[in-house]
Amino acid sequence: MKTKKLIIDEREKKYLLKNKVNEFGNDLGVINISDKPLGTAIKSHNGHEFYLVEPTTYDIIKKMKRSVTTLLPKDIGMIIAYCGIEDGETVVEAGTGSAALTIYLANAVGKNGKVITYEKRADAAKIARTNLEIVGAVKENQKIIGIDEEEQTESEKEEIIETNEIKESGLCNVIQKIGDITEGIEETNIDVLVLDMPDPWNVVEHAKKALNPSKGRIAMYVPYIEQAKKGVEALKERGFLDILTVECIVRNMDISEKGVRPSTRMVGHTGYITVARVRPQQEPEQEQEQL
Amino acid sequence: MKTKKLIIDEREKKYLLKNKVNEFGNDLGVINISDKPLGTAIKSHNGHEFYLVEPTTYDIIKKMKRSVTTLLPKDIGMIIAYCGIEDGETVVEAGTGSAALTIYLANAVGKNGKVITYEKRADAAKIARTNLEIVGAVKENQKIIGIDEEEQTESEKEEIIETNEIKESGLCNVIQKIGDITEGIEETNIDVLVLDMPDPWNVVEHAKKALNPSKGRIAMYVPYIEQAKKGVEALKERGFLDILTVECIVRNMDISEKGVRPSTRMVGHTGYITVARVRPQQEPEQEQEQL
Amino acid sequence: MKTKKLIIDEREKKYLLKNKVNEFGNDLGVINISDKPLGTAIKSHNGHEFYLVEPTTYDIIKKMKRSVTTLLPKDIGMIIAYCGIEDGETVVEAGTGSAALTIYLANAVGKNGKVITYEKRADAAKIARTNLEIVGAVKENQKIIGIDEEEQTESEKEEIIETNEIKESGLCNVIQKIGDITEGIEETNIDVLVLDMPDPWNVVEHAKKALNPSKGRIAMYVPYIEQAKKGVEALKERGFLDILTVECIVRNMDISEKGVRPSTRMVGHTGYITVARVRPQQEPEQEQEQL
Amino acid sequence: MKTKKLIIDEREKKYLLKNKVNEFGNDLGVINISDKPLGTAIKSHNGHEFYLVEPTTYDIIKKMKRSVTTLLPKDIGMIIAYCGIEDGETVVEAGTGSAALTIYLANAVGKNGKVITYEKRADAAKIARTNLEIVGAVKENQKIIGIDEEEQTESEKEEIIETNEIKESGLCNVIQKIGDITEGIEETNIDVLVLDMPDPWNVVEHAKKALNPSKGRIAMYVPYIEQAKKGVEALKERGFLDILTVECIVRNMDISEKGVRPSTRMVGHTGYITVARVRPQQEPEQEQEQL
Repeated sequence: MKTKKLIIDEREKKYLLKNKVNEFGNDLGVINISDKPLGTAIKSHNGHEFYLVEPTTYDIIKKMKRSVTTLLPKDIGMIIAYCGIEDGETVVEAGTGSAALTIYLANAVGKNGKVITYEKRADAAKIARTNLEIVGAVKENQKIIGIDEEEQTESEKEEIIETNEIKESGLCNVIQKIGDITEGIEETNIDVLVLDMPDPWNVVEHAKKALNPSKGRIAMYVPYIEQAKKGVEALKERGFLDILTVECIVRNMDISEKGVRPSTRMVGHTGYITVARVRPQQEPEQEQEQL
Repeated sequence: MKTKKLIIDEREKKYLLKNKVNEFGNDLGVINISDKPLGTAIKSHNGHEFYLVEPTTYDIIKKMKRSVTTLLPKDIGMIIAYCGIEDGETVVEAGTGSAALTIYLANAVGKNGKVITYEKRADAAKIARTNLEIVGAVKENQKIIGIDEEEQTESEKEEIIETNEIKESGLCNVIQKIGDITEGIEETNIDVLVLDMPDPWNVVEHAKKALNPSKGRIAMYVPYIEQAKKGVEALKERGFLDILTVECIVRNMDISEKGVRPSTRMVGHTGYITVARVRPQQEPEQEQEQL
Repeated sequence: MKTKKLIIDEREKKYLLKNKVNEFGNDLGVINISDKPLGTAIKSHNGHEFYLVEPTTYDIIKKMKRSVTTLLPKDIGMIIAYCGIEDGETVVEAGTGSAALTIYLANAVGKNGKVITYEKRADAAKIARTNLEIVGAVKENQKIIGIDEEEQTESEKEEIIETNEIKESGLCNVIQKIGDITEGIEETNIDVLVLDMPDPWNVVEHAKKALNPSKGRIAMYVPYIEQAKKGVEALKERGFLDILTVECIVRNMDISEKGVRPSTRMVGHTGYITVARVRPQQEPEQEQEQL
Repeated sequence: MKTKKLIIDEREKKYLLKNKVNEFGNDLGVINISDKPLGTAIKSHNGHEFYLVEPTTYDIIKKMKRSVTTLLPKDIGMIIAYCGIEDGETVVEAGTGSAALTIYLANAVGKNGKVITYEKRADAAKIARTNLEIVGAVKENQKIIGIDEEEQTESEKEEIIETNEIKESGLCNVIQKIGDITEGIEETNIDVLVLDMPDPWNVVEHAKKALNPSKGRIAMYVPYIEQAKKGVEALKERGFLDILTVECIVRNMDISEKGVRPSTRMVGHTGYITVARVRPQQEPEQEQEQL
């Protein structure tokens, strides 16, 4: 259950409102939405139509509060498709940013999976929490590991993780952390590691150890080509397999009565996406036993 | 649990093998994999290294048997991202084709969601079943609704759906059907309808009724621009909202010691993707009560 | 000899000035340019540097007065390269528009070649003349055939063409005409016909007759895909050879100390360019004699 | 007058033949072309049609002998358009390669202009000469400056340049040189310098001095992004103006009865093009006098 609902007016302008809001108005009129279920069309007094609906992930990403530029859906789609993220997997992400990617990842792994997201800045993490709450990816006011000045105790951390696992109505499958992932990854046996940060190459050595040897994948998103190159070099040095760097360009098409053409203006570039698979290690006998 | 495992050799050549296969060999040597867990590196007698791992969805899509050209991961990623497909949703798809898209959709909605996939040709549906079995999206030899010459009875259909819901180890969240979706959609309250077929415009009237009014979305994938145009026109006529047509172009980057450059050869075009949201109907009082 | 000179200031802002202008000033200061040759750097009283240079065709196109949207250099470059326009050739163009394409074509065919350009609107033709004058592609106040209310006599038309052929200092190889090319092409044995107009298919039948059978080429530029399709169909019907439709996408690269990346914003689409070669006719004996 | 003619058969297969060839045959039959003018259709004995025409620059580029990969017409078009190359200008090019770019440049500057082209390898220069001869851009067996083991004398060089200026039937406006342009540019007051070589940054210091200060432009073509970056940095250090790096992507469109779509396969990348204008120097009084 999302905590917000969406109003779309006749011109397709959109408004994201808290569930408890009972009345809405803009220049096209005022409507009462208190007793209306999602999925209804409502006429204002002056005859304009409004649609009260559930916001999709795509709608929420577009409307939510941002601390920084977020990944566009096109790039998120690439990461999910090229990594082949599956229901039930454990994903670690850094940095959280505004949590656009986090929300998509939470849906990709589903209620049986888990997303642990690192963010260096407490302010950004709090804005991200607000966004994650909207879709139920975290519980209301869910604690962020490491956010208080005084370090949380281990038992407190455990509590955050456990509480989260009650998984009520929403996904509740995201754990937020304050921390610099270049200093180390606390999790082990990670299925997918997604890095949206300026220096992903500084995480590759940690990734090599923290990734699930049977199917651990890594994805990096960076705007500059030099960053992509350094990322790829770090992956090659650590023996990662299936290293692939792509750029995803989306062209919107204008389809009208005048005819069809790609839109005149377009986003020229966002970033390069690199994906790879961790290379299993040649194990000594005992390691083999453990697995 | 997938029914196949993946061998990657030193040159990154890949081999998808049944789980019960115990030995593997190619020109780089022979290895015994009977007692090896996924995620291990194994040396052949002549010293070449092989990696025994779990195939990702992406690996499976690339290696699986095909009845027809399948959507590329790039386009699948766009559909998932632009529709904002969520964990737990009900997706209807047509046609099944080789089930590449189906497998991704199954993971997108997860164990709490459901994918019902229509296919006109029984042959294609059977190949698709084989592919769906690999990832556990259907049970082994799960029945395909309508596949036998004699029409299945309603109770038999129910059985297929129920049996499927036991959801053991795998996702088991896909139901296959033989049928022509242009003749009607049996499901109601669908969250997302995904059409990979030559004449999606013939489904729009059905979609209008079958989609969940609070968040029903539709996605169409077609190679020709005239098809995209007809699809958009059908959507406009039925009052769909947020109609958007995009083309996704992916450039692979060559990153080597010589330098960085986009690859010399690339896929020039696959198809156009149109997404839209169903418009809620202005309801009479009684309808409003029901919802 | 161009009739304008270019000032570039330190910030690379550009100003196109008449040759006789003696003084220039902006917020970076005032400079005297009366005795300065092109190709000099001049410091203003407050120490800012200005560069007095000759404008290139590219500079002029960017700065000149426009009656309508003009083709971008990228598309002009495609037309010149794909048609393989050669020194000395005769090119017919319609419509003139603001003459950006005309200026490039005039340079492509050179002083030994000729460009005849049709324009339906007298107003546009006059603006175009002003632009053509800047580069010397027409003489100052060169008459435009058909521009006066009363029809010009044949001898007057001849005079315009002949006068033009004196070719003094400038290229003086452009002849402007008022006329609707869909009603017919007066010229014969045209080497290249370039159509920048909404309905180029209405010219193809005329083109078939007017083009030089040994090497006549046609180029069409249109923004909508339906237009490109109709153009191609018209060419196919008339047996044109080597029909090719392309779209040219130019990405600007941002190269700075921060790194390299394609620019964030880009022109998403301008138009489609179709080129083809006229098919020589199987001639009766006498025709063969004539050639 | 070109030294070759073109045969196009019904399937649009092309054959470039020497002018003196009198008979042609392939699997579609044999035709006698001895007395046929260019621009005629000829039927073979078994009823297939062939077209005897003049090859365009584009045709020749596609069919000619190559020593190395040549620039594609799309990139040549960009260079001509973005530099705004004009009739009558002096262009210096390095390296000559197979002379595809040279042929286009020769046409761009026309009979009143001049192209001086540097090539390090004598073998490549000889193949280039053969190609230049076809279009008449050099005279038959025109000497290549510096090609003999013993250094040519100054008077011999003069002779090559002068002989070339007789400019008979063809363009005859190209001068070929053996030499490494990174060691220096002999020409002065160059209007446009075009560099298709791996290390164009090593020419920038020479370019600064050799370019016409009133309108000297430079263009560089390189496949790798690191090369483009180094080129731009060298240009910035020497104060060049209007530095712009672009990539030109051409999509071919498939237009058939089935519909319209961009082609499935496309050239993903060729190279980056950088253009810039030389910055005029702040001159002492005497320099100003000279100009």
